[in-house]
Amino acid sequence: MAVNYDEVFGQAIKDLKDEQRYRVFTELGRHAGNFPRATKFTDDGCSEITIWCSNDYLGMGQHPKVLDAMQDALVRYGAGAGGTRNISGNTHMICELERELADLHGKEAALVFTSGFVSNDATLSTLGKLLPNAVILSDQLNHASMIDGVRHSGCEKMIFRHNDVADLEAKLKTIDPSRPKVIAFESVYSMDGDIAPIREFCDLADKYNAMTYLDEVHAVGLYGARGGGIAEREGLMDRLTIMEGTLGKAFGVVGGFITSSKNIVDAIRSYASGFIFTTSLPPVITAGAVASVRHLKDSQAERDAHQERAATLKRLLAEAGLPVLQTPTHIVPVMVYDAALCKQASDMLLEEYGIYIQPINYPTVPRGEERLRITPSPLHTDDMMAELVVALKDVWNRLGLKQAA
Amino acid sequence: MAVNYDEVFGQAIKDLKDEQRYRVFTELGRHAGNFPRATKFTDDGCSEITIWCSNDYLGMGQHPKVLDAMQDALVRYGAGAGGTRNISGNTHMICELERELADLHGKEAALVFTSGFVSNDATLSTLGKLLPNAVILSDQLNHASMIDGVRHSGCEKMIFRHNDVADLEAKLKTIDPSRPKVIAFESVYSMDGDIAPIREFCDLADKYNAMTYLDEVHAVGLYGARGGGIAEREGLMDRLTIMEGTLGKAFGVVGGFITSSKNIVDAIRSYASGFIFTTSLPPVITAGAVASVRHLKDSQAERDAHQERAATLKRLLAEAGLPVLQTPTHIVPVMVYDAALCKQASDMLLEEYGIYIQPINYPTVPRGEERLRITPSPLHTDDMMAELVVALKDVWNRLGLKQAA
Repeated sequence: MAVNYDEVFGQAIKDLKDEQRYRVFTELGRHAGNFPRATKFTDDGCSEITIWCSNDYLGMGQHPKVLDAMQDALVRYGAGAGGTRNISGNTHMICELERELADLHGKEAALVFTSGFVSNDATLSTLGKLLPNAVILSDQLNHASMIDGVRHSGCEKMIFRHNDVADLEAKLKTIDPSRPKVIAFESVYSMDGDIAPIREFCDLADKYNAMTYLDEVHAVGLYGARGGGIAEREGLMDRLTIMEGTLGKAFGVVGGFITSSKNIVDAIRSYASGFIFTTSLPPVITAGAVASVRHLKDSQAERDAHQERAATLKRLLAEAGLPVLQTPTHIVPVMVYDAALCKQASDMLLEEYGIYIQPINYPTVPRGEERLRITPSPLHTDDMMAELVVALKDVWNRLGLKQAA
Repeated sequence: MAVNYDEVFGQAIKDLKDEQRYRVFTELGRHAGNFPRATKFTDDGCSEITIWCSNDYLGMGQHPKVLDAMQDALVRYGAGAGGTRNISGNTHMICELERELADLHGKEAALVFTSGFVSNDATLSTLGKLLPNAVILSDQLNHASMIDGVRHSGCEKMIFRHNDVADLEAKLKTIDPSRPKVIAFESVYSMDGDIAPIREFCDLADKYNAMTYLDEVHAVGLYGARGGGIAEREGLMDRLTIMEGTLGKAFGVVGGFITSSKNIVDAIRSYASGFIFTTSLPPVITAGAVASVRHLKDSQAERDAHQERAATLKRLLAEAGLPVLQTPTHIVPVMVYDAALCKQASDMLLEEYGIYIQPINYPTVPRGEERLRITPSPLHTDDMMAELVVALKDVWNRLGLKQAA
């Protein structure tokens, strides 16, 4: 019997709809100079909204230094890079950026990728291929890109319980000491906003002769005296073998990177398929990233305001009886515990209040842990917060959602 | 015995050096408005050169319409997209771009990825996961990103001989008719510049009830009345299930895409990890891509000039007795047949003549097929070509390289 391809794909989509986790994207135009305000586009026309779920955590995407640097690079160098890093695409601005990032983490070298996703996938998979008979120990809540990288490495993998030092050690003990080992984890987990025990993991790495791979995607620019991340804040950068970060969140642009020793960066540069065989980031992008990284090395104001805004919002939500998680970071999850209701709450906020907070459902979080994930920035005012709390209380009452325990 | 990690990575690099295939990147700044001229940066200072190996095939990376659109988007929307497509990063400009690309290929829908590499990897791997028990039939010279996608799909794969209709049919015959089948191939192969028998492959797909997946990365913008690619030129677009392309070569910016039916695009959009969990391309990039795609739909001048320039250069090189491959496309390979000599020839051209053509060695081409891959654009003048021929002849004589047969 012939395969009916369209039916197979149609069924795959229907499955998502039946499970209430079919994603509908909201078409948006942000307003440079007026973040977090944006225009929402629909077939029926446009309306003005406030974005409360952006990962441009500090609003660097509208910073004049960043926009000026991008403008200048555009006029000077043109649109794209014109090739892979090896074939005519190794632009002056990407080299500048790598020097800036190596310095950010106090490492010998850095390597820029087209995205944070690609940096994790390409680096972890290549590490595994270069280290014969290696085991990768991976935190159970690691990001999809790390999971892909570990899988694509072809290595044996061991999943340890989330942020669990004892479980990691129990697993390390079982591995033959002569086998290479990589401990892969994140500093800030983006959905719960919790922080890994980096020091304890590094101690275990020393004790068991393992490499460490730390994803600082939700922390670079945001923590540490120069924005190096949580490891900088805790004085641990020199204990990590490889640090990974993004240019697309706090730095406000797009792209990913790793920092490490000269030899490791050179090996990834030379062997990672996802690095070698792809057009490099345009100078306009890397110039913006250089400006953003430089600014946040020198300026503490954005980080201070960011932490104050997050603390204030968590306090206001708790006072209003809303089920907010009291995270140790800038991430403010308000729990709904149901996929359909989460979507419905998000739709009501957007349509009735012009407040945009995307519902977070499976597989981004486990089933039953659906939530609104709020990311207040230095640009969200007290008035905006007051409006948000009123809107959330109204939606919570009308939908009969769970209040704070 | 403890693992010495640094030694493992150091050895991996030494292996490449011993094989004469360690890559050294040339640091470049292109001059918008003056392509293909560029500045080469070294520790000793700067010099001016001519780029002969860019994949910005038409020079759209400096086109005023593209730069104006990017400038406008930068001022209006800011630097980055601020999130994944699902979480606040579904910008108006990326939606515009997808409508433009679907129209380019006469398909129901399109999906934009952060790169062409990611579009191949994410789409092929997800196809394989959505089609139970599928077989992917893959041309033996497919690009690294397709190889990764096929591998990551977890499907059974069959490699057929390059562009070989009989071999593909022989393989299709052996597969149980009830199993889903995907034929994955490219239109223009970038290193040899040859063209796949698309019609014959589509005939086989019909006969054996297979899907077709065509990579038009080195053809979109360049072939067909509106720049749809080779399949457009040959009137075959409606016979391909999925077409894939890039925004980083002829369109002069960065990013990748697929076009297909509504259901297939929606399924990839909904299931592909490498699409879902990554920050979307900035509006400044997608705005440039929209302008470039639109321009090349209407304008034949760049395509005509491109073909004329490639034909002229192939003629001049042949007249000079240099071993140029007479390809049916815009790609002009000059064969060296040796990795060390290829690197040496490239270095001499760059240092003595200010002519930049990156050596192409293993694994980009098979060992023994090392070459200089020249990509003349509409912006390369007769004078530049005359200089190039003189320089190549001199280098060929001094290194004792093989002449044309």
